[in-house]
Amino acid sequence: MAKSVVVDAMGGDHGPTETVRGAVSASREHGVPVVLVGQAGVIRRELAELGAVGEIDVTHADDVVPMSERGAGAVARGGSSLAVGCDLVREGAGAAFVSAGSTGAVVVSAITRLGTAPTVLRPALAVALPSVTGGATVLVDAGATSDPTPEMMAQFALLGSSYAELVLGVSDPLVGLLSIGSEPGKGNRLTRRTEELLRGVGLSFPGRLPFRFYGNVEGHDVLAGTVDVIVADGFTGNVVLKNVEGTVRAALTMAAAAGIARAEELREVARHYDPETHGGAALLGLTGTVVVAHGSSRAGTIARACVVARDLAEGGVVARVRDHLTVDPAT
Amino acid sequence: MAKSVVVDAMGGDHGPTETVRGAVSASREHGVPVVLVGQAGVIRRELAELGAVGEIDVTHADDVVPMSERGAGAVARGGSSLAVGCDLVREGAGAAFVSAGSTGAVVVSAITRLGTAPTVLRPALAVALPSVTGGATVLVDAGATSDPTPEMMAQFALLGSSYAELVLGVSDPLVGLLSIGSEPGKGNRLTRRTEELLRGVGLSFPGRLPFRFYGNVEGHDVLAGTVDVIVADGFTGNVVLKNVEGTVRAALTMAAAAGIARAEELREVARHYDPETHGGAALLGLTGTVVVAHGSSRAGTIARACVVARDLAEGGVVARVRDHLTVDPAT
Repeated sequence: MAKSVVVDAMGGDHGPTETVRGAVSASREHGVPVVLVGQAGVIRRELAELGAVGEIDVTHADDVVPMSERGAGAVARGGSSLAVGCDLVREGAGAAFVSAGSTGAVVVSAITRLGTAPTVLRPALAVALPSVTGGATVLVDAGATSDPTPEMMAQFALLGSSYAELVLGVSDPLVGLLSIGSEPGKGNRLTRRTEELLRGVGLSFPGRLPFRFYGNVEGHDVLAGTVDVIVADGFTGNVVLKNVEGTVRAALTMAAAAGIARAEELREVARHYDPETHGGAALLGLTGTVVVAHGSSRAGTIARACVVARDLAEGGVVARVRDHLTVDPAT
Repeated sequence: MAKSVVVDAMGGDHGPTETVRGAVSASREHGVPVVLVGQAGVIRRELAELGAVGEIDVTHADDVVPMSERGAGAVARGGSSLAVGCDLVREGAGAAFVSAGSTGAVVVSAITRLGTAPTVLRPALAVALPSVTGGATVLVDAGATSDPTPEMMAQFALLGSSYAELVLGVSDPLVGLLSIGSEPGKGNRLTRRTEELLRGVGLSFPGRLPFRFYGNVEGHDVLAGTVDVIVADGFTGNVVLKNVEGTVRAALTMAAAAGIARAEELREVARHYDPETHGGAALLGLTGTVVVAHGSSRAGTIARACVVARDLAEGGVVARVRDHLTVDPAT
């Protein structure tokens, strides 16, 4: 039997009602084996509502990391559902961890508790942004590693292309490097060296990289569907992710203010651009897969995040780094 | 008499017809003394159309940098209107230079030909982005210096706050540092140290900095009107600038596709967000002021760019750096 996906019952704006419902849906409708982590009494009450007591395993965790906790403070709470959930994955009892908790808290806790996988230098956060062409573009790293080296960036390209294949079903993905100016040699020190690595300069790969490299892309390419995967350092990636959210909101607010359309209709468009509703943000490169569902997730989004987590866990994301881009950590 | 603003007659998508008309408008309607640089025969023909021969000085330049030239190639063309225009400013014959040529070409040419002003470590490009609150936020650096030091970033804050005061009329501007996470200490190595400098840690200023420091802002603050000035390294700033353009376009395309509004109406909203139509991008910190008007500029935009260039030149932007943040270039 496949290993379970561990679901944080306590994370998210809507609490256990939605997370438990999502986990049950993942199990019943998508055949994903799940374990719920959190305050056992609360979880059992929710399971009882759904007639699912005994159907889903429960692991108790006393403490809850509040949604307002955005980072390091979460790590100290060793008895939280976040901590206990990550530990289950580290100890091999679960294949992946899903949480709708605060992204910062989940990312910091997971990095601390799971650690990076062998051969991976640093983890990366991958999010799928919808593009105007109707498809999606994976932005990687969207905020896990803010000062990467070029070698880490090249590994992010591998992690992100795995995500594009496993979650979005893209074969032989086209990978672009986020820079300024599309010509080779444009950018900053980090992107110039990363570009060389992605072209295969100065690294001896066992065979070619398992994706096509497009070259540099720019800020206006992020939603344009130019490539399947956009590689960025975690600082720039996170700024871009939040800039997309803010700019969509601003543009639609302006359109509403100009009397062009009704605010509610425009909100639907904005929702479409909310990156984390598209399968969740995946933290890749750790000793286990972690999927961060949006804080506002309802049951359906949690269930989809469980499917994504299972697919990533079974897909051997980290093996791809090992097979193609092992780098001496000393570099 | 005030020194002239030198106008590149040959730059821009619409060529001398619009640039000459804009220069004449700047002179007649706004009292800005101007000099036109470019192919003298062509310029005189345009001036004749407007009954302005003899009213505006003309300096001949044989060569024209094409709009497709985005960078270093422009520097080699020593006889171009771009080169001759910059030289006029360097030699003191003009106070500022206005061009609607390719931003990359203007920036590289101006940096090469004018050089940075004494006490300024590196130049920065400032653009005014409209915000949902109806005001504008200055993004600085939007692409001139892609690998700045924290000291350069602190100077960008001074240059950008000058722009906010002189061009947007904001007194005592509120300055934010673009980062990830709003709490102090969040960000990457560059922003963490820059944040300290902007708080006054480790630098001995003669008096307090002439702006209020807000702290960190994030990608969603860029159009939200959170602060008057956002400081970024030129790499991140340029990615954000282009991401705003692309995201506005994408969001409105989606709204049109969803049948919510007519595409032409939405294009009006998009135009409002085109940052360079708001007075042009100003390249600050060189031995002369340079304003890059949008390539698609018509006469009115060129005229406004001339006014901005004059105001910046008279406002002593560089003096502010000298008075507040002289840094040993060896650091």
